[in-house]
Amino acid sequence: MTGSAKPIIEVADLACRLRDFADARDWHQFHTPKNLVMALTGEVGELVSELQWLSDSEVAARLVADEAFRELLGAEIADVVMYLVRLADVLQIDLAHSVEAKLASNESRYRADQVRGSHRKMPHL
Amino acid sequence: MTGSAKPIIEVADLACRLRDFADARDWHQFHTPKNLVMALTGEVGELVSELQWLSDSEVAARLVADEAFRELLGAEIADVVMYLVRLADVLQIDLAHSVEAKLASNESRYRADQVRGSHRKMPHL
Amino acid sequence: MTGSAKPIIEVADLACRLRDFADARDWHQFHTPKNLVMALTGEVGELVSELQWLSDSEVAARLVADEAFRELLGAEIADVVMYLVRLADVLQIDLAHSVEAKLASNESRYRADQVRGSHRKMPHL
Amino acid sequence: MTGSAKPIIEVADLACRLRDFADARDWHQFHTPKNLVMALTGEVGELVSELQWLSDSEVAARLVADEAFRELLGAEIADVVMYLVRLADVLQIDLAHSVEAKLASNESRYRADQVRGSHRKMPHL
Repeated sequence: MTGSAKPIIEVADLACRLRDFADARDWHQFHTPKNLVMALTGEVGELVSELQWLSDSEVAARLVADEAFRELLGAEIADVVMYLVRLADVLQIDLAHSVEAKLASNESRYRADQVRGSHRKMPHL
Repeated sequence: MTGSAKPIIEVADLACRLRDFADARDWHQFHTPKNLVMALTGEVGELVSELQWLSDSEVAARLVADEAFRELLGAEIADVVMYLVRLADVLQIDLAHSVEAKLASNESRYRADQVRGSHRKMPHL
Repeated sequence: MTGSAKPIIEVADLACRLRDFADARDWHQFHTPKNLVMALTGEVGELVSELQWLSDSEVAARLVADEAFRELLGAEIADVVMYLVRLADVLQIDLAHSVEAKLASNESRYRADQVRGSHRKMPHL
Repeated sequence: MTGSAKPIIEVADLACRLRDFADARDWHQFHTPKNLVMALTGEVGELVSELQWLSDSEVAARLVADEAFRELLGAEIADVVMYLVRLADVLQIDLAHSVEAKLASNESRYRADQVRGSHRKMPHL
């Protein structure tokens, strides 16, 4: 990634908002790496819970028919995103850099001509 | 959020890259909502595993002393980010919108003057 | 539950084995409640990963055709069970008592004549 | 494990209770392997959430001072146990056998004289 290229993902504004939010509440003391991955786990659990008893076709149908369901899933995904961005900020990890590195790794690891249509070679995206 | 405002988080390029990656491998068939939240769960598990036996001060010390550790945590967080962005794309959920809505909700729910320094009122960021 | 009734679940021997195992390795220092729920999270992630790209019918077919797959799922479930039992032991929580209480609560909360065939009322077993 | 030995863990009564509970509600249709691991994930998330902002010493202090906290943690652990036992039952996996196999594997993999006091070699119990 050259310095001038647009990053693959931009989260700096959100990281800043979350830092200010924690500052204003004196919550940095709670935002340790372990606490944050635990909070992340809890939010992922809430997201998963919303889908656990539905089939994939029921999920698709409800997304079309029920705007509140889409809002709910969006809110649960947002919670996960926010803890991830907060965690990366606390760890001083550059998310865009990490994602680019992972994309490059996946490109070479899962060559399209070798894994097409097979999940046997699909541990990752 | 007005149309002209810069979104709080930009993930469109990443969503596009992940979509193309799945296209090229004929993997859309596997990227159902349930499968993706399960893959997300697995990646969160890997991230949590890296921190499980360390104290928060050991995490901080290793981040400073051990670049490979920082790279590893970055790679694990990247995996989670990528599945989240892929999931939101499949569900056709606008992440920036969902995050803005959640931030606004949290601002009114956890008023700084009421919750300062207390985790009792901190179920969320 | 009267004192003489057989408990609904018996884990004392396993709790003892795990305690001895940790003793012999001087690992009690690592087996704090937070560390153990994090380890539990990691193991659940591994279990979920084994099923993430399979359909339920593929899971059923592989269980019949592939003994190694059954062994693998058994090993992943065992890891989760072991951390749960270790955690309950560290917290000095009586698992059989907690399970009995939860069963009683669920019986009254999800009355068969009210929830039959519907997952809308099925947040829990 | 010889046929006459007492199993390391006994869950048959609980498995039976949970099967009857699902029968009475016509819930077997929802208890597929994927749905059950997702439900398990959700319950683990709830358990983790209870500890996320507390330090280990705060957890210890609250366990002594606050019986309701102990009940709550017991109830969350019970939920996880119940889904695990239900999952093993649906997959027709013998939990006691799987746990014994894992214990034997861990004994040989983490030899006490080699790993004492070190978490570097402690990915598992």
